[in-house]
Formats: sequence, structure tokens, C-alpha cells
Amino acid sequence: MNRRKFLIASAAVSAGCFVSTDASASSAGAPPAVGAPPQKIAPGIWRFRLGVPELITPVRTRYFAPETAGLQKLPDVKECPVSLSAKVTPRGYQLSIPLAPKEAVYGFGLQFLSFMQRGTKKTLRTNADPTSDSGDTHAPVPFYVTTNGYGVLVDTARYPTFYCGNLARKRKEEQSDEKGAVALGGLPAAYRSQGMLDPAEVAVEVPRTNGVDVYVFAGPTMLNAVQRYNLFSGGGVLPPRWGLGVCYRARTEYTQEEILKLAAEFRANDIPCDIIGLEPGWHTHSYSCTYVWSQAFPGPEMMLKQLAKEHFRVNLWEHGFVHPASPIHNPLIPHSGDYTVWQGLVPDFLSTKARKIFADFHEKEHVAIGVSGYKLDECDNSDFTGSWSFPETSRFPSGVDGEQMHSLFPMRYQDCLQGIFERRKQRTYGLIRAAHALAAPYPNVLYSDLYDHRQYVRALANSGFSGLLWSPEVRDAGSVEELVRRLQTTIFSPMALINAWYIRNPPWKQIKKEENNLEQFDANWKLTEALCRQVLEVRMRFIPYLHAAFVQYLREGIPPFRALVMDSPADPGTWEVDDQLLVGRDLMIAPVFAGEPKRTVYLPEGEWFDFWTEKRYAGKQSIGIEASLNQIPIFVKAGSLLPLAQVTCHTEDPKSWLIEVTLYGGGSASTTIYEDDGTYEPELEAVTLRWNGAETKGEETNSNGEKPKLYQVTRWRLASG
Amino acid sequence: MNRRKFLIASAAVSAGCFVSTDASASSAGAPPAVGAPPQKIAPGIWRFRLGVPELITPVRTRYFAPETAGLQKLPDVKECPVSLSAKVTPRGYQLSIPLAPKEAVYGFGLQFLSFMQRGTKKTLRTNADPTSDSGDTHAPVPFYVTTNGYGVLVDTARYPTFYCGNLARKRKEEQSDEKGAVALGGLPAAYRSQGMLDPAEVAVEVPRTNGVDVYVFAGPTMLNAVQRYNLFSGGGVLPPRWGLGVCYRARTEYTQEEILKLAAEFRANDIPCDIIGLEPGWHTHSYSCTYVWSQAFPGPEMMLKQLAKEHFRVNLWEHGFVHPASPIHNPLIPHSGDYTVWQGLVPDFLSTKARKIFADFHEKEHVAIGVSGYKLDECDNSDFTGSWSFPETSRFPSGVDGEQMHSLFPMRYQDCLQGIFERRKQRTYGLIRAAHALAAPYPNVLYSDLYDHRQYVRALANSGFSGLLWSPEVRDAGSVEELVRRLQTTIFSPMALINAWYIRNPPWKQIKKEENNLEQFDANWKLTEALCRQVLEVRMRFIPYLHAAFVQYLREGIPPFRALVMDSPADPGTWEVDDQLLVGRDLMIAPVFAGEPKRTVYLPEGEWFDFWTEKRYAGKQSIGIEASLNQIPIFVKAGSLLPLAQVTCHTEDPKSWLIEVTLYGGGSASTTIYEDDGTYEPELEAVTLRWNGAETKGEETNSNGEKPKLYQVTRWRLASG
Repeated sequence: MNRRKFLIASAAVSAGCFVSTDASASSAGAPPAVGAPPQKIAPGIWRFRLGVPELITPVRTRYFAPETAGLQKLPDVKECPVSLSAKVTPRGYQLSIPLAPKEAVYGFGLQFLSFMQRGTKKTLRTNADPTSDSGDTHAPVPFYVTTNGYGVLVDTARYPTFYCGNLARKRKEEQSDEKGAVALGGLPAAYRSQGMLDPAEVAVEVPRTNGVDVYVFAGPTMLNAVQRYNLFSGGGVLPPRWGLGVCYRARTEYTQEEILKLAAEFRANDIPCDIIGLEPGWHTHSYSCTYVWSQAFPGPEMMLKQLAKEHFRVNLWEHGFVHPASPIHNPLIPHSGDYTVWQGLVPDFLSTKARKIFADFHEKEHVAIGVSGYKLDECDNSDFTGSWSFPETSRFPSGVDGEQMHSLFPMRYQDCLQGIFERRKQRTYGLIRAAHALAAPYPNVLYSDLYDHRQYVRALANSGFSGLLWSPEVRDAGSVEELVRRLQTTIFSPMALINAWYIRNPPWKQIKKEENNLEQFDANWKLTEALCRQVLEVRMRFIPYLHAAFVQYLREGIPPFRALVMDSPADPGTWEVDDQLLVGRDLMIAPVFAGEPKRTVYLPEGEWFDFWTEKRYAGKQSIGIEASLNQIPIFVKAGSLLPLAQVTCHTEDPKSWLIEVTLYGGGSASTTIYEDDGTYEPELEAVTLRWNGAETKGEETNSNGEKPKLYQVTRWRLASG
Repeated sequence: MNRRKFLIASAAVSAGCFVSTDASASSAGAPPAVGAPPQKIAPGIWRFRLGVPELITPVRTRYFAPETAGLQKLPDVKECPVSLSAKVTPRGYQLSIPLAPKEAVYGFGLQFLSFMQRGTKKTLRTNADPTSDSGDTHAPVPFYVTTNGYGVLVDTARYPTFYCGNLARKRKEEQSDEKGAVALGGLPAAYRSQGMLDPAEVAVEVPRTNGVDVYVFAGPTMLNAVQRYNLFSGGGVLPPRWGLGVCYRARTEYTQEEILKLAAEFRANDIPCDIIGLEPGWHTHSYSCTYVWSQAFPGPEMMLKQLAKEHFRVNLWEHGFVHPASPIHNPLIPHSGDYTVWQGLVPDFLSTKARKIFADFHEKEHVAIGVSGYKLDECDNSDFTGSWSFPETSRFPSGVDGEQMHSLFPMRYQDCLQGIFERRKQRTYGLIRAAHALAAPYPNVLYSDLYDHRQYVRALANSGFSGLLWSPEVRDAGSVEELVRRLQTTIFSPMALINAWYIRNPPWKQIKKEENNLEQFDANWKLTEALCRQVLEVRMRFIPYLHAAFVQYLREGIPPFRALVMDSPADPGTWEVDDQLLVGRDLMIAPVFAGEPKRTVYLPEGEWFDFWTEKRYAGKQSIGIEASLNQIPIFVKAGSLLPLAQVTCHTEDPKSWLIEVTLYGGGSASTTIYEDDGTYEPELEAVTLRWNGAETKGEETNSNGEKPKLYQVTRWRLASG
């Protein structure tokens, strides 16, 4: 991932924080230019510079450069697809962007509680516990995309409010208009759909600023618009192959010995696992953090070596609040905010000095001895629910206040650690609990302490609109059925994640937290383990396919996990589908929830095969299905070749390169997967699979038309359907 | 209620809106005076004028004058009990008010989800669906009171944020401080209690202003501080006696005939009821409203007369958004906001012109023909959840924006209608779904569409801190037990309210909504009806007592329903009790929730009698009780005389003046109740009840030492315990 970084300090911002060098910064002081024509800054991308934008914004403090190569490959668009009007008010800056009748709106980051956003209001605030549909989320992204094929990014670190077609201005003339009258009594349930039939506006209020840059991303298709946004962000991340394996986070109280014992047990029982995560217990003090190995880990280097020998990567939990007992606490005092969190300093990650102090210590104490990545917790602000974190009224040396820092903190925190891995020419893949705009290139996956399965699936559908990766992690469960159903969802997400931080043993031994910690195992736990192993093995089989989907994310900005509407915006049947997902080019999954083995599945246009029965279905219809406990509903597009790897316990097993290829629907088909040498800037050798179903078998060739070095097809088969 | 109103238009505010004439307005343009000494404006009340306050605030647009007579009677306090510091920031105005160790904080209006607020953050926004503990509520009141015996009102119509002792400023010097270290792993549950042990601050951010008035209300006791706040607001409201009877709101689709039939049925079945409420169906169009009687009510005047003959009052549902088909729509166009709600205009209730147009129509069409009051719905803003209502970015002719109007709308809307009843020298008592600061004098009770029983009880406990009245209304129920338990709560609230707007028949005939509307009655509904009648009869028996409690609210500002901590702030045992209530002088209730007949009750200092068993308990202890379905736990203070009326079906039955008086704990006791002639400025003839338990009976005398005109004691009895 050879990405030019934006690392030039700007005089406009104190204390040497990172500010981009793109055109936007140069003309910063310019006079208000409301209504000025948009400037085309890349193929199909326009910027409206409105008023006097703030100097510290997501774009202006960006770390990754746009993925221009990918942008060049997209169809050019001559005209900016939207107009907009703007004005300064005593409250801040106000925008109005028109909405056409029947134009559906999506995005705004990792929304848990709503999907199609037209008719709603969203105030985008970073919040760890978004329990109401106010716009609060771990990852509020001031970007939306519509079924009319364009996206809009409002470049602000403030908490903007978006009114999505739910407002009606007063008409001055006298009138007596019964149109759209609402049914007598009760609240107007039909209100949103009525709004859909009239022209409307997205009204945006950006508080406390006299101007803002607005970026418009053209299509022509809805997917193209999202691709442009992701490529503008720097292109999607390509995880190392091991990052696509299973990640298991062990109980926070675990010692070094218990970690090694767990690892050995996984290998002995053929539980697939590539990553073991350590939770807070590895610090000498964790709320706030010292980043220093505790007594429970007397020999971390030895432990890391031993785990590496068994092909395990190790990921470390932390958060960004620096405890007084940490060696970096005192050096950070001048480079931190004016309020503390859990007695810990809040580093000003916009400041080069803070980043150097923080990163150097992490590199020396963790990465240099073999740590593969981090889980960056608590960076999302939860003062509405847990009353921790720094206030919006905080001030930081770089000049931002708490509101701006809550938006930028997770991004600049990642930049700080990203520097380590870039220096070391090493790929990483981890977790983070917050994000904001331009997140696509970051090698960290979002997660949450909330735990509603249905909301987790909706978040996965929403994540694709905003350049986010999301893992519906599995912890405990109310029933074995729930455990299995949750696992089936997590294996079709950016990280197959089991988070046992508060249970002593794997959940399949005992789903109930208390009993699990008392070592009271379920009588049938061996059966449950077998069921769960089977689910995790499905993940391992799909890794070549998922890896190829992420290469598309990297190069073309196509989200590997996305809602149906993104590929079929013209089909209103997809508009409200928030519990099914497209995965890569050729797959659709329909997660099943505990207690509901029967569900309805909407099949978009085209023909589809049930992965398990290989039964064939026509598209553009809803079908009822029943999913047996060991199967998550998977549908494969007709006309596709699906490569599935041999099951292995980790991605470094050479057998993981052995694949079986199935042709769905006969005829002639081809697809591409990639050999990834795992280096920082990997040679991605394209391996093309081609098969005319009429022939007895297909052929696999690399870019030179030769047999691939690593991949080997063990079997070519035709789907029966 | 002879209350001077503040009705003098101010040049400072356009379009002739109401602005108070008190000192605060005159010096409005004054230069910032941060740190200026507070001005004592009444006994025990100080105002800090900080910077340049806005001209439109709750105090500066107030309608009711302070209840100076009551204020004079409170003990004077020489020194302002708190200091504060303030500063202007680019974000707005910031305040810091110290908190002492072990000082507990309460208030912020009708909070559903939290009680003791120290350690939390609250952003006070008006919102109809406060599903997260962010500070959103129907009635956000920028007022808090502490166990150290003072209250603080921040006079703003903005959405202020209060950080209640949950922040810690960074210390500049180097340090390595393990104090208050948080347990390893997980979130710091103990955090709040730890914060309680250190000095801290309430940090307040008022957005978008260069100044603010802060009012401090001294004690010496916590209750005194709340009394001062309520008396400053204008004193509490005294409902007419009929307002303390039972209110039943009929199904929205009911016709005039069905209303009359329902009323007759209630009288025939001895169901206590004083008020019948009409829901949206009475309008020709209800979302938005026309305020015009629909075809379902061909003869409203006749209906009102007939109901009056049967001693029923009628209350009309409406909201403030004016439909194009309403006769007042076009006249209101110039006097309304720039956005519409459900196609309806949003009247600028700060404007005298809008108020006159709106009130004149209501008086002529409703009040003049016998309507007793209103239910003012949807005035609270719910754009986060239902995406209706006007945006914060709205502008109104009076000069306020949508943020300010959301805070002031319910108050000035009430003022508009209050004018009608004042002109007509007529008392009213109704409902409203939103409120703000200075609400104590208003004759309307809050309610909500949310329906969690435990939250409803917590809201009742919280309402008393902020001068609010709240009714935990009863609608449908999951079980007969739940129905009865909910009824038992509502009878010990400011309005005993059954809201059957979406069920055709009284809930005791069928608790389930669908079946109820299909006339499918429960087999045992007669038994359920008897149980419910029994509960409602308890309400009727307590009316003399409740009426006396409201007289204390009127004259002394003592909330009739309040949390234990307000009377016992020095007893930490009361600090977290949010599911018990003090009612008037001598009662405490402990509502019971469906499925939990057993509960723990905390008895504050003093001795207490179980109302039902008359068993005697020592105070300052927690006891376990079990409540049979037909009894809500009620405790009576030892040393009190409790007058209970004869059960009647309505408050105009002369038998409602017949009382039985019970002496609890022997010895000598006296109490006062009031004869209320129901007029607008009632003669409240004090009737004193005295009894030395040693004698065979007590005596009741009016202010001339004579037998009372109306009240008649039928029996004096000693509690057995």
C-alpha cells in the first residue's frame, strides 16, 4: 500500500499538527464565496468552498492521500450532479441540498437504529452507546449517498445536523391545502413515505463555523459514488491474510501461561484461530492505561515468539488515556488536553510531538517484540451514558476544542500507531471503537459494547455506505442457537471475532457468563464446540474469496460488505433491506436470528443459487426460507465461479492455498483471486480462474499465463441446481 | 390566584412579544460583568448577571410574577450560598460552580432515566422520546438543587450542557498519582461514588451566547431552596377540586353519542370520574389541527351542557400546529415560523398578535360553550425520533430561532390559553406534554407516550425538584396485575389519568388493545372493574388531603409529590431512592410493579404507620413488604391526623365534604384542610382539625373558631398500631 502521506505542518495550526497539503489548505483565508461554482478536484469529484472553512477538519488533517490510480479508472462525469445553497447564520453555517421525489438517502456512518434515512434527522455525535436514533454513533460520518447516484461529504469535525427531507418551509401565500393530510389520530406513520413523493431538501447545520467545504462524489451509479468517496479517502484497506482468519480475545484476567494454554488448546482441538487478543489485564494499570506489561506477563517477548511459532498473531487492547504511572505520562503533559479521563491525560493526537512520544514507546515495548496490532478502545466519547471522556469544552494545544477532538481523536490516534507499522514496513489489522470521515484506508475494524444481533446486522449494512469496517463480535449468548447464529454473522464480516474478555472459557463450553467463569461447562459442550468449529471453518474456506473482495476495496473502493441497495438502487425492493448483505462480487448472505429459523429473503435482479442446496432461484422476488442451525443462508449469483479453500486452522498453513472451484449456472465464467506475500507492499499476483462449463474442467493462470505459484485448484465442479 | 402578569412589550424584542418588566430587562445591554457580585433580588435569592445575557429567556418572557408573599415567609439568608466563575468562549458561555465532597445533585426537569445526577452529563433538549440518558426530556429545566441546601437556575432558552462533577481538570505539575485508581478491566462502575469524595464542579456550557443570568436560591434546607424556586416562578398551582378527581380520556374515534354513553355508563357503574377528555377525533383535521368541531360532534354545546349536568368536565386534545383548513391559519401566516409541521403553521407564541388570534378563536369555539381545559400535545419536539416538529434552524418573527422556541414553545403556548381562563375568571386544569423553567404556576400536568412503569415513578420523584407536575397515565396493560399497579401509581400523582385514546372500552373490560377494540371482553372483567373502582375510590378519599398539599404548593412552594431526599438531605439512605414518594405533609407511598409484589421500602427518620395494617415502624431503616394486589403501600407519619373523604363518583357530590379523621401515634395533633369554593380567586377557608388522642374525639373549626360550612367530620378514630 504505497500511499503518499500528508505530513506537512501548517502555520495555521499551532503545535505542529498534521494538515493536508491539498489545495484546500492554501486558500483557507479566502473570503466567503457562497454560491461560488464548485471546483472539480478529481474525476467525478467536486469541492464547494463555502464561506471560510475551519482549518482543522477531517480532510485538512488527513493522513492518507487519495487513491488517484483508482479514481482515474472510474467513468468520468462532466457535470457536478448536485447544486447547493448555503448561508451563514448566528448559529453556524447552513446548507441546503435538493432531494428529488423518490430519492432514497443512506449513510451517516455506523447507524444502529435506522437504515434508509430520508425523513429523519441525524445529529452526528461520537457516542459509545447510541441507544436512541438521534444520529449518535461510534462512527459518525458526515457523508450520505442517494439512490440517484451521488454522495455528499460535509468536511467538518463539528457535530453537524442533517435534516433529510423531513422539513417543509412555510409558503407565504394564503392556502388551504389538504394534500398529504395525515390520518386522524396517532402519529403520522405514513409521514416519511409521503415525503418521498415530493421534492425536498437535505438541510445541514454545521455549528460554530463561518464556512465549510462540501465534497460531491458523482456516480453515475450509487456504487460508483461510494467508490469515489472511498478512493478519495485513500482506497480501502487490504488486510493481511492472517487478518481474515479468526480472532479470539481472551479473558482480561488471563496470565501469560493461560494465554499459551489457550493457544495450545485451540490447535489441539482444531479451532481455527489466527489472532489472539489480550484485554486490559496486560497493563500494570488499565483505566487509565500505562501501556506497560503487568506481572501477569513476565516474559512477553518469549510468549510472542512461542505464539508466532504456532502461527498466532497477538493484538493488544488499550485506550488513549495515559495513566500517571505510565512512563509517557509526564512527557505528554504539555501535549495533552486540559481535562483528564480516569485520571489519565488525553494526548493531543493532532500534535506531532504527542504522536512521537506515544508511538515511540509503543514501537519499542510492543511492536518491536512481535505485537501485530492493537484494539483501540474508549476513543468514542460516552459522556452521555457513562459520564466519562473529556468534555466538548476541552481545549487542546493544537487549537481544537473537545467537540472537534471527539470527531478527530480516533482518526489521528490511528495515524499515530499507523506510523509505527509503516516505518517497520509491516501490515497490521486490529480493532477500534470509533471512526469518522475518510476511514477506508485504516486497518482497524469497528466494534461495540452494545449487543443486539439485529442492530449488529443493520450496522454491517450501513457500514458500507461510509467507508467503515464493522465486526459484529460474539461474546456470551442466551442460548446455543443464539451463539451459533451470532457466529454465522461474524464470519461474514471484516473480522471473524470472538470476544471472551469477560468469560474464562470459550463460549461453546458454556454460553452463560457466570457458569462459564465458575468452570461449570454445559453437558453437551462438545457438540456445541463442533457446531461452532463448523461455522469457523466456513470462514476459513471463504478467505480467498474475501481476500479478493478486499483487493477490490483497495483498488476500486468497492465495499466488501454492503447493502443490496448499493448495487440495485433502481429497485425499490432493496431500499429497506437492512438484514441482508452483498459480500464481494458474487455472494449475498441473509443472517438468521435466534428463534427465527424461518425468514424472508429478497433476491435482487439476476439468478441466484442457494449455496447449501444449490437450488436455483429467479431474482426480483422475495422467498421464504428455513435455515437449519448449522447453516447461514448464502446465495451465489448465477454465472459466477466460487473458489473455496481447504479448511485450515490458520492462514499460514500451506493447505490454505488449495482451492475447490464451483461454477454456478453453467456457461462460461471467470473470476480473479490474488496471491498475497504478506509484505507491507505486497506483490498481489492475480490468479485468473476460467471455466466454460461445457468443458470437463477450468484452468487457473497467473498474469504470465502460467500455473500460479501458491494457489492450486484441487477440484472443478458444477453446481447441481 | 391573584397574580400580577408581566405583559409589557419590550422594544428589545420584535413583533411585540412578552418580556418581563423586572430589573433584569432594563440593564440588558450592560457590558460583560464576569465575576461581578450577585444582586439579591428577593429573600434568599441572588442573581449573577454574567456578560451580556440574551433578551429572550425563560425569566425575561415570564408570564407569572414571583409569589412575593410566600417568599417573605421563608427564613432570610444573608449570604449567597455559592460562588461561581464564568467566561466567554468561542463556543458560548461557560460557568463553573463548585461542588463539595458528598454533595448530591438533583433536578434538570422530568428525567426518566437517572435520579441522583452527580457524576453525569446532561444536555437539556426538549424531546418527546427521551430513550437515552442524555438529558433529553419533555421538560428540560436548567435548574438543579443539592443536598447542601441551595438551587441554581441558568436562565437560558438554549440547550445548555451540565457536567455534574464528572470532569477532572489536568494538573500542570508532574505527578504519579494512583489515588482513586479504577479496578482493572471493564468500565469503572465505582467512578461516580469515587467522584463524590472529592471537591468538584458543575461545569455548564450555554451555547451561542455572550452572557447569562444565573439565579441562586438559598435554603437553608434543600426543601427551602426548591420552595424559593417555585415561589420565584409564581408559586405552585392549586387545581380546582374537580381537577383532583379522575380524568378519563376516551377513544379518539368516539362520537358525541359515544361520549355521552360512556359518561352515563360511568355513573351507572359508580366509576369515579370528574373529567372526560376528547382526543384528536373532535377536530375536522388533527395532524395538523383545525380546532374546529368535526361531524362526529354535531352539537358540542348541548353535549357539554348535558355532561355538566352529570358533573363531568370536558378537556380537549390539541397541538399548536395550525392546519391550512383552520379559520385561524391564514391570519397566523405572518405571525408564525418559517417551517411548517404536518403542513401546519407554527404560531410564534412569543408574539401578542399570534396569541390573540389563537386565544380568541379558542375562547369563542370551546371555552365559552363550556370546555374546561386542554391537553396540549406534541409541543415538545421529537425530530430525533419521529422526525417531525420544526428545526433548530427555524426563525420566528419575535426573533428567536428554533432552539430557543423549542424551550419556550410549551410555556408561551400555555400563556396564550391561560389568558382565556383569566379573562373569564375561571380555573382550569389540563395536560401538556412539555415544559421548561418557571412552570410551577401552570395548571397543566405533564404526560408522555413512553410507558415504562418504573421510569414513570422515577419521573414523579424527579418532577418535584423542578417545579413540574407529572401524571403516570394508564393506557393498556400486559396483565390485570399491571393495570392495577399502574392505576395505583396514577392516583398518587397530580392527575389520576386513564388515557384510553386508542382503546374503545375502559381497560378493565379488556387490557389487550386489539381485543378491546374488537369488543372481546375478558371473562372476569367485572372483577377487574371492581378492583380498578376500588383503586380510584382511594383517590377520591384522599382529595381533601391532596387539595391541602396543593395549597402548600400554592402558598409555600412545597411540591405535593417529591422525593425522600428533599425532606431528608442529610440522610444518604434517601439519596438514591427514586421509587418512593412523599405526598403532602404526612404521607409516603411506595409503588409496586407488576410481578414484584414484594419490595424494599426505605423509611426516613421519624416513625411510620402502614396505612393498611396500621402496623408501626421505626424510621431510618429499610423494610421488606409484600403488597396484596388491591393495595399500594402507603405509610403515614406518626403524629399526624389524616382526613379521608367519603367515597363519591365526583367532587361535586356534597358527600365529598364528609370526612373521617384518623390520628396516627396518639398524643396531640392538628392539621389543616381547606374549603375551596371553586372560584377563580377562591376563598380558601382553613379548617383546622385538632385532636388530643387522650380525649374521645377531636374538633374541627374554621378560622373564626366555628364549625366549618362544608367539611363535616363523621368519625374520629385512633390508628390501632
